[in-house]
Amino acid sequence: MKNTSPYKNLIALTLCLVGIMGFSQSASLNEKVLFKTDIADDATPALLARIRQAKDHPISQIKFEKGTYHFYPDKAFERFTRISNHDDVMAKTALPLLGFKDLVIDGQGSTFIYHGRMIPFLIEGSENITVQNVTIDWAMPFHSEGTIVANDEKNNTFDIHFSDEYPYEIRNEQLIFLKEYYEHDLGQSILYDPIRNAIAFDTEAYTPITTIRNSKTQRNFDKIKYKYKVDPRSKVEKVRGKEDNLRVKEIKPGTVRIYNHRKKLPPVGMILVCKGDQSLNRLAPAFRISGTDGFNANNVTVNHAGGMGLIAENSSDLILDGFHVKPSHGRMVSTSADATHFVGCRGKVVLKNCTFNNQLDDATNVHGTYQEVVDILSENSIGVRMGHAQQQGFPIGTPNDTIGLVRLSDSFFAYDHLTLKAIENINGRYQIVTFNEKLPATLKVGDLIENLEGYPDLLVQNCNISRNRARGLLISNPKNTLIENNFFSTEMEAILVPVESSHWFESGNAANLVIRNNTFQDNQHSGFNRGVIRFVTDDDNDNIAFKNIEITNNTFNQFDNLILEISNVDGLLFEGNKITNSGTFPMLHPENPAIKVKASKNIVFKKNGYKGKAKPILEKDESQPKLKFK
Amino acid sequence: MKNTSPYKNLIALTLCLVGIMGFSQSASLNEKVLFKTDIADDATPALLARIRQAKDHPISQIKFEKGTYHFYPDKAFERFTRISNHDDVMAKTALPLLGFKDLVIDGQGSTFIYHGRMIPFLIEGSENITVQNVTIDWAMPFHSEGTIVANDEKNNTFDIHFSDEYPYEIRNEQLIFLKEYYEHDLGQSILYDPIRNAIAFDTEAYTPITTIRNSKTQRNFDKIKYKYKVDPRSKVEKVRGKEDNLRVKEIKPGTVRIYNHRKKLPPVGMILVCKGDQSLNRLAPAFRISGTDGFNANNVTVNHAGGMGLIAENSSDLILDGFHVKPSHGRMVSTSADATHFVGCRGKVVLKNCTFNNQLDDATNVHGTYQEVVDILSENSIGVRMGHAQQQGFPIGTPNDTIGLVRLSDSFFAYDHLTLKAIENINGRYQIVTFNEKLPATLKVGDLIENLEGYPDLLVQNCNISRNRARGLLISNPKNTLIENNFFSTEMEAILVPVESSHWFESGNAANLVIRNNTFQDNQHSGFNRGVIRFVTDDDNDNIAFKNIEITNNTFNQFDNLILEISNVDGLLFEGNKITNSGTFPMLHPENPAIKVKASKNIVFKKNGYKGKAKPILEKDESQPKLKFK
Repeated sequence: MKNTSPYKNLIALTLCLVGIMGFSQSASLNEKVLFKTDIADDATPALLARIRQAKDHPISQIKFEKGTYHFYPDKAFERFTRISNHDDVMAKTALPLLGFKDLVIDGQGSTFIYHGRMIPFLIEGSENITVQNVTIDWAMPFHSEGTIVANDEKNNTFDIHFSDEYPYEIRNEQLIFLKEYYEHDLGQSILYDPIRNAIAFDTEAYTPITTIRNSKTQRNFDKIKYKYKVDPRSKVEKVRGKEDNLRVKEIKPGTVRIYNHRKKLPPVGMILVCKGDQSLNRLAPAFRISGTDGFNANNVTVNHAGGMGLIAENSSDLILDGFHVKPSHGRMVSTSADATHFVGCRGKVVLKNCTFNNQLDDATNVHGTYQEVVDILSENSIGVRMGHAQQQGFPIGTPNDTIGLVRLSDSFFAYDHLTLKAIENINGRYQIVTFNEKLPATLKVGDLIENLEGYPDLLVQNCNISRNRARGLLISNPKNTLIENNFFSTEMEAILVPVESSHWFESGNAANLVIRNNTFQDNQHSGFNRGVIRFVTDDDNDNIAFKNIEITNNTFNQFDNLILEISNVDGLLFEGNKITNSGTFPMLHPENPAIKVKASKNIVFKKNGYKGKAKPILEKDESQPKLKFK
Repeated sequence: MKNTSPYKNLIALTLCLVGIMGFSQSASLNEKVLFKTDIADDATPALLARIRQAKDHPISQIKFEKGTYHFYPDKAFERFTRISNHDDVMAKTALPLLGFKDLVIDGQGSTFIYHGRMIPFLIEGSENITVQNVTIDWAMPFHSEGTIVANDEKNNTFDIHFSDEYPYEIRNEQLIFLKEYYEHDLGQSILYDPIRNAIAFDTEAYTPITTIRNSKTQRNFDKIKYKYKVDPRSKVEKVRGKEDNLRVKEIKPGTVRIYNHRKKLPPVGMILVCKGDQSLNRLAPAFRISGTDGFNANNVTVNHAGGMGLIAENSSDLILDGFHVKPSHGRMVSTSADATHFVGCRGKVVLKNCTFNNQLDDATNVHGTYQEVVDILSENSIGVRMGHAQQQGFPIGTPNDTIGLVRLSDSFFAYDHLTLKAIENINGRYQIVTFNEKLPATLKVGDLIENLEGYPDLLVQNCNISRNRARGLLISNPKNTLIENNFFSTEMEAILVPVESSHWFESGNAANLVIRNNTFQDNQHSGFNRGVIRFVTDDDNDNIAFKNIEITNNTFNQFDNLILEISNVDGLLFEGNKITNSGTFPMLHPENPAIKVKASKNIVFKKNGYKGKAKPILEKDESQPKLKFK
């Protein structure tokens, strides 16, 4: 992505100024700026004032005297912003790095405390940006945590106590958590075990708390006829036919009783963590990076974010060295979504010496985007639809990128390709994409497009990935991926290698993936019957999706049997791994083998050491009749 | 406002394209385009495709073969848009007239039917645009209407029947109306009398339906400390401490019973009209005009809009001749908010030969905007705060406009003025305003600014203003206003002349206002104890706010006594008016005089004919001791 800022020509006084704004700067003669703690009460106006001058007075370095700085949204730069895998938000930030080049921001050990719906670092259309030596936290988190203090099997109730840190209100028997400039309901929830400071063992038996049920009265809804496809998960559609299931009463100050939960009652002593409705709770990532070439984070700690720690889109060469996502103030939870996430990124993506702890979603997820062909408009242009609400407005690439044409029912690989000429963003869900070449006659409405270049060389090295909800690494990367010397202890898969075409529309079938010298400790402990490393496609067929995989010299010290699920793979070497049973928890699925293989070929097992409890060790289909575990 | 489009330099393929887009065109060699009914199933893509080419292939005329054209949002142009006195919306339109010049759009008698959240005409930064011979309607309205079919005093319930046109659902005993791409709850409601096809007599005794009550449980809310002023009416804050009051049950298909209403039970046979929550229901005006010089609407009918029929901001020379707001399909309601509304407009604003019927708010409202000084930033710049959520992002003027400095506690008139240099829109609520001159030493945080030039010469002539909720005309115009030969029959004031500083932050104290040869028939019939023509200030003091008023040769045929409330006026001639009692309804406030005068001077009554029932005719304070009604 080039550093050509599209913002340069805007004039200050326009009726549409709120829509877009830029502060581009060139690289030469740049000033070094130091902020002192005299701005700490609300650092937003001073910081923004300097950023606003950057076009005329460029900056090469912004340092902060070591201290604790507060940032309020009231005088922050604001712009409507679509962020992949987040809600569309009115982004408010003190640091709109739009079209910046060669800038170092150094906190010198400072802590930045944010208030409400803000994005600490909004970096777009920039080049060579470094952020270092800073800790990011929020005054009030976007989620809430309470301790289960009682449960009552007879009456099917349980009681939660919330400390004064979590103001709440009960409206029509529904629990609402009150925050600065924000609120959330119970919504998405999970149990943490405060002794282990990690997701509770077998939490799937207890959570999520069943907040929603079907409503009973609906009249003439069938009279509404949509002309085009509608996303049943969109904010408007998802609530139809649903209503609140729970009843909540305060039984004493700070303690509420929950009626009508439909799973097992949460055990006393566990911490219930909740973050509100899925379509409303990803609104304030700590770092949003888009269209940027060159980003370095060194010694950065993210204690919290209302969304991801870092979301990067259509950017290149992103190096995170010592990027630590972990909670503060004794909280169970750090970020309320993924620690990091990379969409359509290329060049190098490096995560080394990082901590990804206690976040409420994956440590990272690397993928592209599938867009559905809904119109063939001319000999070289098509209309495409964004399948997921959190992909709205996503540009699939830059001019001359190679775009694959994909029909997943036939193959996980593109059946043809074209090169991109232009994208016109008609609306969040609909774009007109023009190619340099004529469309092939084979192209049909319903096919998908995928950017074949928008993937990185990925390195995940020396990271601690544990105590979080969901997966460790989600790898949809057909370029090169090396995962080594990491520690994994996650409640779901440590490493998930998917083709996520049907719900998330996240493209990219992994190839050239090396997983070596890692330790896997008691992953998948929340109750799902799935492997620690898992290859899986949403489209359930026997076609090859994944190629050239190496899993070598890892240690699997798991409480349960299932280590590895291989599906739709061509070429996988599993060698030199040590597998033991940790005994940490009771086994949940003792009937499982250690390894399942289906619809795959060229799978090789060599020199592994197995001291687990699975019998048989290997379960396979007819695709590899002679395959044996060794 | 100049026609210099700020959009010209954007490139097509940018990461931020969704933020802003323009299709400017110059005036010469423009093409005349004709659309035929072959596009009628969804006219959006074809129309938008041609608009997108306008920069290279300019258009002078767009005609439509006479027919009925549907417009869907799925492939419509979309942009985040802040609209004054509306919600901030993701505007979707088939006609983004951004930076157009000298264009005529002629429906030739066609009807345009919109589906869901769309803005039929989005006109910004343009010049000399004409729209004619077209009717605008929606497939499903943004409000809902049902007939009161029973009420039960003993159990305090009433029953409403909704036809198949109004799909609904009941969630946790709350009634939700389901629409295309939208839904609303009961929210704001009022009664219509289907026999009179107008707001029901004394509806204030029955409505609004009491949908909200205080909630009982709130814990540690006082722990949330905001650093800056917070709008208690903002979406986040307004719901705190509140919950749903009603319970709703379906008693048979299409008929629901409402429990727990706290006003009088609505009479059987009346139509209950509802449009959902106030902060969510103004999202799809038929015309949005901003920064545009020269707009003509001729023979345009607006049957419905989810918001106003026409909202114009910072524009000039707007001539509506035969602009008819009236309902279709036997509905009680036309637009769900004002028929027309003008903010910061200058030059001429003309409403002649228009129909403003059955809309759910005023026929028109002409005003500017007050913005609060919250920071003095330099010798010539200030930080200002938008007081109302629906004024976010509003630019107070263009360079060199004269900006008044106002301290309403001292005077309704500016104590000093400056000229505008630039506005920087930091966020929706906060702007940095720079002046050409140094700030006066008298300027204090807490003062207001007002654009002294952003008012028009206003003509309202030969219009029928009736059957609607709220007022006829709301006039906050210090330039010149002529209101003549109109018919008024409104449920609140026919003409309200306010200084609305405390809630709406709508600036402009009227002067040079002539009201002549109009007929006022049974206005103020919904129950408020207020005059038919009313001068009033939010700031309750005796300072002069209004000057040079003439009310002559009008006919007041009212069922009740109070005709005219004069307050804070210097110079008002009331001459040649005929006042009779219509006997249409029982008098609601028989104790009232016909005219109240306070805190005013130079009031003159001459040659009026009084045949009403008020005793005394005139009630006055000590400000005009010798004043007599004549």
